This record gives sequence, structure tokens and C-alpha cells, in this order.
Amino acid sequence: MSTSSHLARKGDALFSKTEKVNAELFTMTYGAIVAQLVNDLNDVTAVNEALEKMGYNIGIRICDEFLAKSTLATCTSLQETAQIIAKVAFKMFLGVAASVSDWSEDQKEFSLELKSNPLEDFVEIPESHAGLRYCNMLCGIIRGAMEMIQLRVECSIIQDALIGEDATVIRVCLKEVLHQTVLQDDEL
Amino acid sequence: MSTSSHLARKGDALFSKTEKVNAELFTMTYGAIVAQLVNDLNDVTAVNEALEKMGYNIGIRICDEFLAKSTLATCTSLQETAQIIAKVAFKMFLGVAASVSDWSEDQKEFSLELKSNPLEDFVEIPESHAGLRYCNMLCGIIRGAMEMIQLRVECSIIQDALIGEDATVIRVCLKEVLHQTVLQDDEL
Repeated sequence: MSTSSHLARKGDALFSKTEKVNAELFTMTYGAIVAQLVNDLNDVTAVNEALEKMGYNIGIRICDEFLAKSTLATCTSLQETAQIIAKVAFKMFLGVAASVSDWSEDQKEFSLELKSNPLEDFVEIPESHAGLRYCNMLCGIIRGAMEMIQLRVECSIIQDALIGEDATVIRVCLKEVLHQTVLQDDEL
Repeated sequence: MSTSSHLARKGDALFSKTEKVNAELFTMTYGAIVAQLVNDLNDVTAVNEALEKMGYNIGIRICDEFLAKSTLATCTSLQETAQIIAKVAFKMFLGVAASVSDWSEDQKEFSLELKSNPLEDFVEIPESHAGLRYCNMLCGIIRGAMEMIQLRVECSIIQDALIGEDATVIRVCLKEVLHQTVLQDDEL
């Protein structure tokens, strides 16, 4: 298994090589989506679901790009997969790494903590929308990308820096290891 | 007036200093907005308008950031403003510069040509949505940002690489120089 610092270097290298755009433009564009959904759906639960689904559709596409560019060996455990998501994938796409913590006893659940999160810059949630999971797109991206490597997970935001908490924390729960019908033994 | 190569260097320098995210993540996130709008509004003209309006709201915010970070001298002509948008602002935010061409005789209209456009990667417009101006958010951003420097313009996509044309071309038409009530003589 690769060490955390090795993965961090890998994430840095991949991010430096990738095509990039200004983070602020991305932040504002994402903010515009959330605003559009809030206006259209007028219900925070429905907005949270729409953001998650949007992320899922991105995740299933972005996973291929990640596997092709990262050229990492196949993961042999969920612990390793979690570290790669946190240190390599988050860094490669968002420009910031996450940290992994709080494993459940059965080793099927973990938390991804984001101390810094470009999606949340300049954002304030009005009290009238207190239940809004502004960054729920990230949960969907993780779910979609993990499904592509045969891991069915559920993700949810359990702490949110936008409502005054220290960091944004996403809880990832492994529900099922899917069977590969075509490429057996190719990936976990 | 600054030369084009001086502005290009300025654009490169600003882009290298700025916080960034992966262009593909941005592209897919923007694609998700367009898809959401197409589903919700089910009418390409309404989608084009919604994308333009979204861009306008981003433009009026992003202009401040641009003026603060670029520390360029006040423009003395529309020609200079056009070059700064093309070489500095496009580069700083999208990571790609545009070129200015096709000035009208009265010098109030010009075209911005984008040979490369991260918004359009992996995008295909189905024939059923032939009138969709996929990148119309860019028109709105330019209109919003120029309004902040007292130039009321109308912008439209007059050529679209997505429908097989050589490049994406945005036509910018100056309609009015607005009066500044607070900071007279501060900016054109």
C-alpha cells in the first residue's frame, strides 16, 4: 500500500499536469447551479437530491479520466481506496486534498474531511435554507466514481463548514461490492 | 496602450498565480447546469436566456476580482478594453486567451474568437436542440463585467464550434456608455 505522503505527491503531480480553470469562476458557476435549483424546486430536500444526482452523473464519467491519468495500481482494500480518493482524486480535481478519519469498527465506513473547499468560497446559507447541503454534488461524484470501481456506497455530508462547523465532512458507507461481469479480477 | 504580447504575458502571469480547479470538473459541472436547464425549461430560447442571465450575475461579481488582481491602468478606449478582455480576462478565468477581430466601421462592435474553449470539451448538441447557445454563459459574463465598468453592451454567439464551425465567436456591441454617479472619472 502506498504511503500517505507518496499519494500526496502523486496528487500534486497530477494536479500540476492537468488543464485548469480559475477556481473562482468554478465556485460562482456552481453557486449559479445551486441558486437555479433552489429557485426551480423551492424545497431544500429536492435540491439536495438534485445536486447529488448531478454529481453522480459527473462521477461515473470522471472516474475513467482519473483511472487513465493516475495510473495507480488496483486497490486491494477500502482503506487504500479511501486514501486515494482523499489524497489523489480530490487534489487532482478540486486542487485540495482531503483527510480520511473515523473508520467504523467493521471498516466499511469512513469520513472524508475537507479543511478547505473551493465550492464554498463566498457562500452564505440563509436561515430559511438551513437544511441545504450546498456541496452535495461532491457526495454524488464520490458515489458515481466508486460505483465505476464496483463499490456501491452511500455518501452524506455530516458536518458542514458553511453552517459554522470546523470543516466539511463527508461520510462514505460501503453498502455492497458489486460483481464484475466483464472484467473479473480487473479492479476491486 | 499596452501591446498584445504584453497583455498576453499579463494574462499568463495572473492565471499562474490564481487558485485553480481541474478544467474537466468545471466542464462537466457546466454541462450539468445546461442539462438541468434543458430538462426544466424544455425550450432552447429560454435556456439560452437563463444561461446568459446566470453569466451576467457572475460577471458583475467577477469584475471586481479582475480589477483588483489585474491592477491594469484604466482603459482609454473600447479597443483597449476589448484586448484586455481577450488577452487578460479570458486567460485569467478560463485559462485560454481569445482574439479580437472584425471591428465595425463605427468602432462600437467587435468579435471575440475562441479557438479553444474548455466549456465545450466532450459536448455534442443533438439535432433536436440545434438552436442551443451552449456557451451563452460567457456572453452574460462579458455583459455583466462590462456593465461594472460603465459599458452597456449586448453579446451574442455568432459562430459556434459546437455546430461544426472553426471557432466560437462572440459578438460584442457597445450600446451605451453609462454615467458614473459616484466615482466620476475613475474608470471609463
